[in-house]
Amino acid sequence: MSTLESGTIPRSELPEPEGAPSIDRPAAAHLASKTSAFIAEHVIPVEREVIVDGRIVDDALRLDLQRKAKAAGVFGPLSETRYGGLGLDMRAQALVLEAAGASLLGPLSVNGSAPDDGNIHLLRDAGTTEQKERYLAPLSAGDTRSAIAMTEPAPGTGSDPSMLQTTARQTDSGWVITGDKHFTTGADGADFIIVVAATPAGPTMFLVDHDNPGFQVGRRMPTLDHSIPGGHCEVTFTDCEVAADAVLGEVGKGMLYAGVRLAPSRLVFCMNWLGLAVRAHEMAARHIVGRSSFGVPIADHGMAQAHVADSEIDIEASRGLIRWAAEIIDTQGADSSNARHSASIAKTFVSEAVWRILDRSVQLHGGLGVCEDHLVARFLVEARAFRIYEGPSEVLRWSIARRVLRPFR
Amino acid sequence: MSTLESGTIPRSELPEPEGAPSIDRPAAAHLASKTSAFIAEHVIPVEREVIVDGRIVDDALRLDLQRKAKAAGVFGPLSETRYGGLGLDMRAQALVLEAAGASLLGPLSVNGSAPDDGNIHLLRDAGTTEQKERYLAPLSAGDTRSAIAMTEPAPGTGSDPSMLQTTARQTDSGWVITGDKHFTTGADGADFIIVVAATPAGPTMFLVDHDNPGFQVGRRMPTLDHSIPGGHCEVTFTDCEVAADAVLGEVGKGMLYAGVRLAPSRLVFCMNWLGLAVRAHEMAARHIVGRSSFGVPIADHGMAQAHVADSEIDIEASRGLIRWAAEIIDTQGADSSNARHSASIAKTFVSEAVWRILDRSVQLHGGLGVCEDHLVARFLVEARAFRIYEGPSEVLRWSIARRVLRPFR
Amino acid sequence: MSTLESGTIPRSELPEPEGAPSIDRPAAAHLASKTSAFIAEHVIPVEREVIVDGRIVDDALRLDLQRKAKAAGVFGPLSETRYGGLGLDMRAQALVLEAAGASLLGPLSVNGSAPDDGNIHLLRDAGTTEQKERYLAPLSAGDTRSAIAMTEPAPGTGSDPSMLQTTARQTDSGWVITGDKHFTTGADGADFIIVVAATPAGPTMFLVDHDNPGFQVGRRMPTLDHSIPGGHCEVTFTDCEVAADAVLGEVGKGMLYAGVRLAPSRLVFCMNWLGLAVRAHEMAARHIVGRSSFGVPIADHGMAQAHVADSEIDIEASRGLIRWAAEIIDTQGADSSNARHSASIAKTFVSEAVWRILDRSVQLHGGLGVCEDHLVARFLVEARAFRIYEGPSEVLRWSIARRVLRPFR
Amino acid sequence: MSTLESGTIPRSELPEPEGAPSIDRPAAAHLASKTSAFIAEHVIPVEREVIVDGRIVDDALRLDLQRKAKAAGVFGPLSETRYGGLGLDMRAQALVLEAAGASLLGPLSVNGSAPDDGNIHLLRDAGTTEQKERYLAPLSAGDTRSAIAMTEPAPGTGSDPSMLQTTARQTDSGWVITGDKHFTTGADGADFIIVVAATPAGPTMFLVDHDNPGFQVGRRMPTLDHSIPGGHCEVTFTDCEVAADAVLGEVGKGMLYAGVRLAPSRLVFCMNWLGLAVRAHEMAARHIVGRSSFGVPIADHGMAQAHVADSEIDIEASRGLIRWAAEIIDTQGADSSNARHSASIAKTFVSEAVWRILDRSVQLHGGLGVCEDHLVARFLVEARAFRIYEGPSEVLRWSIARRVLRPFR
Repeated sequence: MSTLESGTIPRSELPEPEGAPSIDRPAAAHLASKTSAFIAEHVIPVEREVIVDGRIVDDALRLDLQRKAKAAGVFGPLSETRYGGLGLDMRAQALVLEAAGASLLGPLSVNGSAPDDGNIHLLRDAGTTEQKERYLAPLSAGDTRSAIAMTEPAPGTGSDPSMLQTTARQTDSGWVITGDKHFTTGADGADFIIVVAATPAGPTMFLVDHDNPGFQVGRRMPTLDHSIPGGHCEVTFTDCEVAADAVLGEVGKGMLYAGVRLAPSRLVFCMNWLGLAVRAHEMAARHIVGRSSFGVPIADHGMAQAHVADSEIDIEASRGLIRWAAEIIDTQGADSSNARHSASIAKTFVSEAVWRILDRSVQLHGGLGVCEDHLVARFLVEARAFRIYEGPSEVLRWSIARRVLRPFR
Repeated sequence: MSTLESGTIPRSELPEPEGAPSIDRPAAAHLASKTSAFIAEHVIPVEREVIVDGRIVDDALRLDLQRKAKAAGVFGPLSETRYGGLGLDMRAQALVLEAAGASLLGPLSVNGSAPDDGNIHLLRDAGTTEQKERYLAPLSAGDTRSAIAMTEPAPGTGSDPSMLQTTARQTDSGWVITGDKHFTTGADGADFIIVVAATPAGPTMFLVDHDNPGFQVGRRMPTLDHSIPGGHCEVTFTDCEVAADAVLGEVGKGMLYAGVRLAPSRLVFCMNWLGLAVRAHEMAARHIVGRSSFGVPIADHGMAQAHVADSEIDIEASRGLIRWAAEIIDTQGADSSNARHSASIAKTFVSEAVWRILDRSVQLHGGLGVCEDHLVARFLVEARAFRIYEGPSEVLRWSIARRVLRPFR
Repeated sequence: MSTLESGTIPRSELPEPEGAPSIDRPAAAHLASKTSAFIAEHVIPVEREVIVDGRIVDDALRLDLQRKAKAAGVFGPLSETRYGGLGLDMRAQALVLEAAGASLLGPLSVNGSAPDDGNIHLLRDAGTTEQKERYLAPLSAGDTRSAIAMTEPAPGTGSDPSMLQTTARQTDSGWVITGDKHFTTGADGADFIIVVAATPAGPTMFLVDHDNPGFQVGRRMPTLDHSIPGGHCEVTFTDCEVAADAVLGEVGKGMLYAGVRLAPSRLVFCMNWLGLAVRAHEMAARHIVGRSSFGVPIADHGMAQAHVADSEIDIEASRGLIRWAAEIIDTQGADSSNARHSASIAKTFVSEAVWRILDRSVQLHGGLGVCEDHLVARFLVEARAFRIYEGPSEVLRWSIARRVLRPFR
Repeated sequence: MSTLESGTIPRSELPEPEGAPSIDRPAAAHLASKTSAFIAEHVIPVEREVIVDGRIVDDALRLDLQRKAKAAGVFGPLSETRYGGLGLDMRAQALVLEAAGASLLGPLSVNGSAPDDGNIHLLRDAGTTEQKERYLAPLSAGDTRSAIAMTEPAPGTGSDPSMLQTTARQTDSGWVITGDKHFTTGADGADFIIVVAATPAGPTMFLVDHDNPGFQVGRRMPTLDHSIPGGHCEVTFTDCEVAADAVLGEVGKGMLYAGVRLAPSRLVFCMNWLGLAVRAHEMAARHIVGRSSFGVPIADHGMAQAHVADSEIDIEASRGLIRWAAEIIDTQGADSSNARHSASIAKTFVSEAVWRILDRSVQLHGGLGVCEDHLVARFLVEARAFRIYEGPSEVLRWSIARRVLRPFR
């Protein structure tokens, strides 16, 4: 009897670096430091204008920040060098995107925010040469923004891809797409949209330009988070005609591509949000050192120290899970079973850890913590959706458990 | 050796009802049912206008709702019958205010919301006959609104009353109050303010009319909660002259009165917020019964059921703690040590349970849960401050522990 | 639209006391005090002999303790007065059995421990006059001990009653029972056993005398808990012949009776274990007041205070849930839907709260906490099974959720 | 203003491998696989004899298992190659000791268990050439066992080193040690003991041979864990004379050495216990796949899946924290501030994660989970002390928080 077959990732499958070292860690750490400095100097001042004073996050603001990021040499952590990016693997991104995440506007400023990050990954993996030139190059360079239209109003698809209602009908010259989507992140002002629609061969991805007359951006949904440019929108495809070359990847394989997109996309979210949580943790630490109650600094109260320690532990555990999933993606591929599993684990833990850290940071600020004068209040509200999008914790736990249980069935 | 001396409330100290039964429970349950019907018919429709469409909660709205509450016979759960109220003890309030709490505007509609609830209690306990006539009667009847000015900007008082910075200097004709307060709940539009200021004899409470030239309402602070009329304001007392009869209670005993106000005030918050949590719990239950994923209603997924059960347990445990503290206040007095202890326990548990219930209700709604189209998103954000005001959980835990440990010292 | 139909126990269904007050609370509180004194004087000294020195809990010890309980006037909280018991309703039992639970041997000493408590309830509800005289009377008086044989080795029944494998075949003169049971609590030395077996008409309960030649007590299973007299045993029924009058209740209604037994039985467990948790909480409080580290008593460290406060909150929340379920059983009947629901809620919360409290008490003892010299170590280990027997938390949560969701289906 | 100074480990301080790669990961993974095979074949069968049948863990058993480990090429993960060990750095140990930890007897079998692991580390760092030859060589080779005597009965030292009561008085020829210790792990049968005693120059470490007439091993304390050879003992030093060369390291620097010992020792515990948790996780997975209730395998119930996923997440987060702390120790040294911080974080999280995983594994086994026939019951009990020894979670959290807060003071 072997008691030791494992449903967890077997130790003997540990990824082995091949050929040249895929990450130059000192260089990545240096880049992360530069990114931190850029965020502190150029992004955080603007963030306060946005959050406290209500300045709109429009393309003018985005382009200004991205110009400064280019000048600082920190633009494009997700982009290939051929498109003006930094050409980093996931392990290097982990360092750099955590640094960028310190501000709500940080990922946007370096062109490392959703949904462009996943779309860059998707186009790189599944795009034709022409599609890369037309869509990937300007997106990677920050010249355009994109959106992804997947989720549908009930009874359409949410977590369950089999419930897809939007359809694409093939014609002589291409396809006609019809259906309603909502929570289409970034749609307002996006240059193009990747939409998933059902075909007889299965779900298929299409590239739709924003000025396609069959495509309409409806209402920006009043979600708790406000900081994503383009918002989360209701969009409609009404007899939306696209050419045959608008298919992204193979017909009928839309969910496969969506799956490939998922592991890196989940991980990028983890990196960005963790950066925000680290900043809130530090804001709380500074606050309680500087305020006193009952005769001593709040920082000397044991229950405050417990909050600080718990957040520190959550941060380091999050970093460990991100680092591990990044290494697996780098060495075994984003479409490997180990990559999906480790990214699901990271997403579940980090999204909940970030929530706890932000919640503790609010609590440590006392009454000020629930006042939007202090950014932690806003951070908490912005972060709530992270436990739901790109896979709610419950769906991810189900998926993690199935993978663990499979070898024992 | 007795292993059994107890730091917890000894069983032998169980409150014994005296004289006539202080609660007529069937009557209270009937009143709660009427309140529920009133909330459903008159308040919930308006709540949506406020939350989703941004209608302002002004006095016109408040007075309209309170007029309807009077017509429905559910106005004044905290008010004495002599002032047009329902004359309920705390145990009856527990049933009625949970019912009223089902809407964010419910407590206001029946005149059972902060800070008026605590001020009614305070005036009843500490007011002179003249003060009762001038301030308590119209406040109880819904003709006026009030505020309480306690918390100060750093380095002033927050959780620690010894840090009070606002002062009152005695003159020949009365007092002159000077100082800054913030988080003054309800100040914008309040008819009068109860302010705590330091005097040589100790902290003292004063009644200040809204039109006193030495009193200024500043900015409404941008807190996460939006539903309290009058908001949370910055206020200033600049050489604010009041007459000698503006002192509420005895000079130098302000913190004592604040303490007496605390147990009932904390408990009223618990009742109101629990009502909102119960509603969110039911909204989530209805949602997951009506939506399917992976081939079955979400309500059939075990992890969703776990959320539902956990919320149900949190609700019943909250009710049990509220009921117990209410009984102790009714039978042993709001200023008894047992009352303070049991109200601290209830506030700590219920504020955290409400947060968990609302958070689970958001999660069970999936993506819709973070969209303010669905009220649960707004409920969650509104509730965050409840774990901080009227005693942050950490300060309450400290207080609970000291009481438990005292007999063993 | 009514947003307010409730899956939770509707407020309007609040139990109303009928006729004479069913509980005399001061009398019950007085009895609880006497029970506490009895436990401290007579039981706790022996408990140490059992736990630390390994004295066996045999009938001699049990009878000696019960004799003393009778002398102290605290014997029989579950028994009717006609059988020498105290004739208490569930609300009074809540006070008395918590007091008795302060020692692992306390419930046994007053004849209020499993499985006799549930069997007393069952015989009272379902027994014939003859069965009551023969089995209930001596069991209530402490002259006998009993067992209940329900759970079976795989693939037999555990949480799922439909998996019952033990059968009873009807003969001319009675029944022949065949099958294996395990975890048969109290079997070693029991005077009679209640066994559930499948018949063509459905599961049926039978009373089997210990000296029936078809009944064999096998191994005492090496469970983590050691303090229950008679242990948890493997038992076998081999062509076990019983007369027709051995049927308890109606043929085919065994699960119905088991269900009726459940709510009170779960609640009695809650009362007893809560009593132990309260004692551990007080032991921890005394310990940390008396020990210092880093220059102050451990009791002055904030993290220790947080543990103390959390345990205090858990205790009061547990009491509230027990009190509520007891009131519902007393006023609506043990077989009411509300009784089952509220007892499931109480069992789930209290079993987990007890575990947390004991775990914190161990932690507050530091290294001594994991040494059986100190009883908290043993208490923790003894308590682990409480989250599993009489319904594992997961099965209870499933049941609670179904009840909440039903009105929305 | 820099919002970004960090109390957490700065990214720019990321350890950089120097010179030759300090770990050959494929080789370590291969060694871990061999260790797993050895544990399954030789150790797990004996473990059952020990746990279920009560076989004593004596030197005969230990030596037999270690002989087999040598034959299998898996002996000595903590030992230098010059002493017959495997010469691994901490990162390699992380893989190998997790594999060894799969059995309670695994770490002992490969000579990687407490307290020998820490003593090996200590002797290597602080021993003289003679001490290494006399104590380190045979200890590394498995020819001897050792103990460490630090903790004292009240009012002596526990978590707070300043409370040390045992003294060492200098004489012409050496030292005379006097004092009582308890929880002296491994003392019964140890060949030598490292004892910490107070001298005028400060706490000092001494090497004492087991047959020193001034040294007495008293009672084995009845702790919850049974699997450590030599137990946890009360020991007494009565005018215990040792020569001058019995001082380990410098006089007065005993706590410094104890501190250096801590980070690796805590990490080794994490590795070993995590291995046991992984095994329990797999046992639970196998169990719920093979058992059914309510018509489907338990593994198909959502609440069981949530337990499985939570344990999987806990395991991967633990691995990430261990891996990170190991890398820091390897590259920055065990006595670096980063090493202490990251090891404190790992110990706090992993000890609590292991407890949760074992607890869930018990729960997933249902009634069988609390029966020592099934090893998970025993595993849970054995593991409780891990949250206390080598730094209770509360003391570690205090230490973690101080480190985080320091830059903000």
